[in-house]
Amino acid sequence: MTRKVVIVGAGFGGLQVVQDLKGAGCEITLIDQRNHHLFQPLLYQVATTLLATSEIAWPIRRLLRNRPDVTTLLATVTGIDRERREVLLKDGGRVPYDDLVLATGATHAYFGRDDWEKDAPGLKTLEDATTIRRRLLLAFEAAELSDDPAEREAFLTFAVIGAGPTGVELAGIIADLAHRILPREFRRIDTTKARVLLIEAGPRILAAFPEKLSAHATRSLERLGVEVQTGSPVTDLGEAGVVIGDKPIPCRTVIWAAGVQASAAGTWLGVETDRAGRVMVSDRLTLPDDPHIFVLGDTAHVETDGKMVPGVAPAAKQQGKHVAAMIRADLAGKPLPGPFRYRHMGNLATIGPNSAVIDFGRFQLRGRLAWWIWGLAHIYFLIGTRSRLVVALSWLWSFLSGQNSARLITQKETLRDQ
Amino acid sequence: MTRKVVIVGAGFGGLQVVQDLKGAGCEITLIDQRNHHLFQPLLYQVATTLLATSEIAWPIRRLLRNRPDVTTLLATVTGIDRERREVLLKDGGRVPYDDLVLATGATHAYFGRDDWEKDAPGLKTLEDATTIRRRLLLAFEAAELSDDPAEREAFLTFAVIGAGPTGVELAGIIADLAHRILPREFRRIDTTKARVLLIEAGPRILAAFPEKLSAHATRSLERLGVEVQTGSPVTDLGEAGVVIGDKPIPCRTVIWAAGVQASAAGTWLGVETDRAGRVMVSDRLTLPDDPHIFVLGDTAHVETDGKMVPGVAPAAKQQGKHVAAMIRADLAGKPLPGPFRYRHMGNLATIGPNSAVIDFGRFQLRGRLAWWIWGLAHIYFLIGTRSRLVVALSWLWSFLSGQNSARLITQKETLRDQ
Repeated sequence: MTRKVVIVGAGFGGLQVVQDLKGAGCEITLIDQRNHHLFQPLLYQVATTLLATSEIAWPIRRLLRNRPDVTTLLATVTGIDRERREVLLKDGGRVPYDDLVLATGATHAYFGRDDWEKDAPGLKTLEDATTIRRRLLLAFEAAELSDDPAEREAFLTFAVIGAGPTGVELAGIIADLAHRILPREFRRIDTTKARVLLIEAGPRILAAFPEKLSAHATRSLERLGVEVQTGSPVTDLGEAGVVIGDKPIPCRTVIWAAGVQASAAGTWLGVETDRAGRVMVSDRLTLPDDPHIFVLGDTAHVETDGKMVPGVAPAAKQQGKHVAAMIRADLAGKPLPGPFRYRHMGNLATIGPNSAVIDFGRFQLRGRLAWWIWGLAHIYFLIGTRSRLVVALSWLWSFLSGQNSARLITQKETLRDQ
Repeated sequence: MTRKVVIVGAGFGGLQVVQDLKGAGCEITLIDQRNHHLFQPLLYQVATTLLATSEIAWPIRRLLRNRPDVTTLLATVTGIDRERREVLLKDGGRVPYDDLVLATGATHAYFGRDDWEKDAPGLKTLEDATTIRRRLLLAFEAAELSDDPAEREAFLTFAVIGAGPTGVELAGIIADLAHRILPREFRRIDTTKARVLLIEAGPRILAAFPEKLSAHATRSLERLGVEVQTGSPVTDLGEAGVVIGDKPIPCRTVIWAAGVQASAAGTWLGVETDRAGRVMVSDRLTLPDDPHIFVLGDTAHVETDGKMVPGVAPAAKQQGKHVAAMIRADLAGKPLPGPFRYRHMGNLATIGPNSAVIDFGRFQLRGRLAWWIWGLAHIYFLIGTRSRLVVALSWLWSFLSGQNSARLITQKETLRDQ
């Protein structure tokens, strides 16, 4: 009887497995708790009003409508019964598997201070992005309404915590929004006076990049009006603002881009994980004691040449390809492919609306040309002609009109979520 | 000192007043509880996945960025102090006015059964639209997950209550979604079996249209697979479904398009209203006892030749023009314009993805040609080249690809809002 492959998570890794299993003749069930695949690399642009939600997400069912071998379930996984080889669903349902692929991604980590989350949302889902967008825009609105100078200043101070690519990208666009795009729209406040802080505990921003590019990025951000504060550990934060060391900074909008925590897959399996909760897998991406349970992407701790594979889309895709190859070989009774090896494509990050830094290892790029390469690469990786068209149009539009096209507040008019 | 004009509500009426007061030399404050102007005539297309939220809404500030004479406030009005001539805001603020324009629109009316709202949301705001979209899509997901035939059937039964233009438009697109667009995407359920009920208490649908067009619309809807039930008063509804007369119909998704209720403006002013809460205004659109307080649009009860002016966008715009003309004349010390007279442009409603009925009074149109006229008219009335481009693209895309482009579930994966 046909092999049952259950894949949990329709991110870059999970979808790649589905794609590469086309025609393999197995019965695939794809489970995700959202109805859409999300193009996370551009999520920061939704959070900062450059793109609309619909431009970087696709209903999973639609992507797979020509794959009768795939059943898609919108459901939340609560555990795994390794004895009976079944995935447990929140509504009580059970999905049996012969091969199980866990590609459930990661979420934010607050280093044991989960109480910080409500005041400093992270950026992983579309909901996170619209929440952050809402708070950004409402902060300006509240400042315009307020008559208290101190309160106004707090509303016009924005803090991004963590200076990896996401933090850098968020800070750059927020500064551009405040200093270039919004000024003409407010009558009582001067949004060019808004402060945008990029707060990093480590010694420099974009730590994964060469020093030269970090330095360049810092200068570019400062030109955009971002206050870059390195060596500045956040010791506390709340509705009133953030505390760096023992220096409190009144600020009503804080965004968390500091740490990630793998999803619960390790707990479901009851296996060993690293400190970030990633499942320790074999060099074949399987559990050491079960060759039919695969873990990949941000949920897995994988090393190549002793270096940990980074949590980026290309890595998840490569792992997805490898997992699919393993399953196909096994189905065909052929010898399994060798250990997984990660091929690093390079690091990139955008700085503001039209600059970027790219590290290809062999050589580096920065500035406007880097931005164009980054832009083309991302449009290329989007799914479907329509999205490519629409995203290109949105970028072209902001570029020509000096306006960001996605400035809607579509949730309650409250600064904090009730 | 300059005349202070305060306008509450940035819908079609309120924005028209702002537009026509350009250069009049008054100090305008525009107050709305949302940050965007919404193109309500296309809202049903957001609710039914044809358009994305960002395509039919525009940040009010951006629309008015070239109007230094206008201050925009994102705030909720709680009352009006007619003694001191001030508008009261939720946060305690007060906005003084010389002229006050109330264009605060309408909301749904449940005929004294407000408890029905949570199970049968209406369609007035972007949030309403995304809520309805979410429930529609989640109903199909829940049916795919369910193993209980009765439950599946209830999830695959959709009821639209009220067969005015909005109800007809919703029912048509939902049927198209279930019967033409989704079937290929589900493996366990057959969405072509989904039932879409259009429930009307009155004797025929589209009561405002000539009998011939109602009959044509009924036939077209039935061709799309909509079950049209006229003379069917809803006596009760809840999470389990709707009750028509004494016949219960199990159904998990109910949309309310039956009644409207004017906003609270009448209460704020403490004046006489009609049964729907509309403020009774003079033929100059002012309060009988205060020529400096104007009420217009869905919030006002206005009659022309003894016929009540309908709650449609063109009426609100015409009233906005009239109010601006009154204020300008008063400012210039010129004689005031005569009484307001409504010029009816015609009624139109779309039926499914590519048919419509239009009643121009003198002559009538139906079918595909009517749809094209309807479509062009609406694209023309959208604000800005970008929106026109994007909406046209979305329609063209659905037309060519047979796919609706806005199928995201961007809120919690729950059928009811917690």
